Amino acid sequence: MVAALDTPGGARAVARCDGLREAPYSDMEGGLTRGYLTPAYRAAQDALAGWMEAAGMAVRRDAAANLVGRYEGEAPGAPALMIASHLDSVRHGGAYDGPLGILLGVECVAALHAAGRRLPFAIEVYAFGDEEGSRFPAAMLTSRAVAGTLAPEALDIADADGVTLQQAGVDPATYLSARRRPEEIFAYLEAHIEQGPVLEDEGLALGTVTGIAAQLRYALTVRGLAGHAGTSSMALRCDPLPGVAEMVLAAEQVARADASDAVATVGRIEALPGAANVIAGEVRFTLDVRAGEQARRDRVAHAILACCRDVAQTRGLDLAVETVHDLPPSPCDPELMDLMDAALADAGQPVFRLVSGAGHDAMNMAALCPTAMLFIRCRGGISHNPAEHVEPADAEAALAVMLAFLERLGASRHAR
Amino acid sequence: MVAALDTPGGARAVARCDGLREAPYSDMEGGLTRGYLTPAYRAAQDALAGWMEAAGMAVRRDAAANLVGRYEGEAPGAPALMIASHLDSVRHGGAYDGPLGILLGVECVAALHAAGRRLPFAIEVYAFGDEEGSRFPAAMLTSRAVAGTLAPEALDIADADGVTLQQAGVDPATYLSARRRPEEIFAYLEAHIEQGPVLEDEGLALGTVTGIAAQLRYALTVRGLAGHAGTSSMALRCDPLPGVAEMVLAAEQVARADASDAVATVGRIEALPGAANVIAGEVRFTLDVRAGEQARRDRVAHAILACCRDVAQTRGLDLAVETVHDLPPSPCDPELMDLMDAALADAGQPVFRLVSGAGHDAMNMAALCPTAMLFIRCRGGISHNPAEHVEPADAEAALAVMLAFLERLGASRHAR
Repeated sequence: MVAALDTPGGARAVARCDGLREAPYSDMEGGLTRGYLTPAYRAAQDALAGWMEAAGMAVRRDAAANLVGRYEGEAPGAPALMIASHLDSVRHGGAYDGPLGILLGVECVAALHAAGRRLPFAIEVYAFGDEEGSRFPAAMLTSRAVAGTLAPEALDIADADGVTLQQAGVDPATYLSARRRPEEIFAYLEAHIEQGPVLEDEGLALGTVTGIAAQLRYALTVRGLAGHAGTSSMALRCDPLPGVAEMVLAAEQVARADASDAVATVGRIEALPGAANVIAGEVRFTLDVRAGEQARRDRVAHAILACCRDVAQTRGLDLAVETVHDLPPSPCDPELMDLMDAALADAGQPVFRLVSGAGHDAMNMAALCPTAMLFIRCRGGISHNPAEHVEPADAEAALAVMLAFLERLGASRHAR
Repeated sequence: MVAALDTPGGARAVARCDGLREAPYSDMEGGLTRGYLTPAYRAAQDALAGWMEAAGMAVRRDAAANLVGRYEGEAPGAPALMIASHLDSVRHGGAYDGPLGILLGVECVAALHAAGRRLPFAIEVYAFGDEEGSRFPAAMLTSRAVAGTLAPEALDIADADGVTLQQAGVDPATYLSARRRPEEIFAYLEAHIEQGPVLEDEGLALGTVTGIAAQLRYALTVRGLAGHAGTSSMALRCDPLPGVAEMVLAAEQVARADASDAVATVGRIEALPGAANVIAGEVRFTLDVRAGEQARRDRVAHAILACCRDVAQTRGLDLAVETVHDLPPSPCDPELMDLMDAALADAGQPVFRLVSGAGHDAMNMAALCPTAMLFIRCRGGISHNPAEHVEPADAEAALAVMLAFLERLGASRHAR
């Protein structure tokens, strides 16, 4: 029984993440920056390859420079569950965003290997390469290559120093051969830190992810009439900024009132001409709306925009709305979510579900196979920051849940 | 009786402003820019000197490069009423902001001269030099020199090309000798376009100015907690921007509710880090509050800041308030305001008073003598813009009021 193992594998996974946060595993001094295909990336792959081998895996690098460790199932060559996350980081980021999910995958295999266990399926642990897009002007190239959704022309890019992908060490001509087939990979599991405050606020270590939120992003421009801050009486102004203030509050109120997982954010705002003694003639701002389901997202977004139009009409302002992004949701597989809930219960954890507002490699893999994600609490919800922190006990609990998930998945595969 | 003159002097003043809007009277092609001490400034002075002489004035340039025309009163060497405004312009400005007040002064004298009239006081028409501060990094140097409030060290400046005042043609060593004494100048009159929409909205050509508004300017910083726009649920956010939105609305509401001449403006706003997918951690904005009386200004400003503090406390935000400017008001002389009201009535104009939210040379001259100002309607309240426009009929009405003001001032001087 795998779950009975008393190896503190979760703590070891955390310690290994800690070990990867500095040279030679970081491209910078005094912090962690690990770009795709940099020397630090190669060094981290080398360390990871050693841990994979020690856990009983056969290790290879694929054509997209992903590191892949395979642990065979009961029958050699069986379809595999992919357990994955990313090895790259943002600039001056945290140690756990990505690597923790990979290393928990390695610990799952290490536990099975130590117990001499084989499951009715193989396990392939993938360390993806450029989830963050911190080096090249693209993101998630490698998981898109594996999922088969990457267009060849997406590879014609260079980093800020003009270094092309080819010069960085991968061959665009063979890159797409990293693609896997549904008959090879039957399911996908990713553990990841939450990067938000929800689990901490709920007092929970772990949660079943329902999917990657659908996202809408708008650029709004509100025009009124610029004027001298001293010579225009209040009654005669057509100042767009108080109107935009009402729109910002409408975004907050509508999203709050929806009382769902929907979130709405105005992150950028600019008044033009932008002088203290000039009434603005124009205000530009962004509106980002996300929710686990597209219909909920659209309901919230459209209600906010309706409020904005009302405000503009009431105040005699001109409102222009441009849709910048419209990304559909990437729901996790319902059966795998049920399995994850059961695994949480098996491991003595409360069952809790939450949506991921941020994107993950899982959203690409959903094109290949059913996906599941497990979120792990991180302190203060802080991520993309050196202050990122995960309690080893939470990683331990995550490992126990992942092992229980494997047991249940194995049972369900046996039952077929 | 001067007011009976049928010379269309107001229309001529407008036409002369129009004539001064292009080369050689502008420093730019295709628009009007006239900086202090530039060739265009000198050319405009030359044209103006001719008009002053034709109106019967003795003309001189003072040590600050102001052009001065003097028309003696009944007794030579009598104390003078100064009628003035500025000859310089902002970059790509309008034709009437400044010159119209000077040329209406010239027309007042021309009318007296044509009628062979002398008043119980002299008239000195001043064309001030750098009200706008569009060339040197200072403003209103020349009226401050005349009023005796200019510090010698203020003259140690150069324009954007490194040209010092001395290189531009004035002598810092003698500059302050442009100062006039109260026994020489007993009162000051300035006619100026309103540069705001109040008169047009009231359907009035003219208004008695009650003074230059007192001004307070603040820089406010509101801090919350930055976060990922996708991963932070609405309930767990500490987003400073909706709080600032409430503050912007409070500024508008408090100033409106005061129902006075008080105005409050947020002209600059910035959310940091300022990305569409990041909840702002900090928002910075400016607050500009003005009113004709300091107490009213302070009442409105303090009420707005109290609202800001309430919002910050309710939302758990950190609020920092820095006072950037605190300029006292420059009230016009009450007796001269009464005289101006009476002159409006004499000329068949409705009596109306309004505050000036913008600064004028009059605010400096108030240190020397009692001041009066007459505002003239400009289309749409537009100024500092090539679209600036004044109806000749409004200038005609202004001239009639100024002449009636002179008559009444003469009567009051006689009565002493």
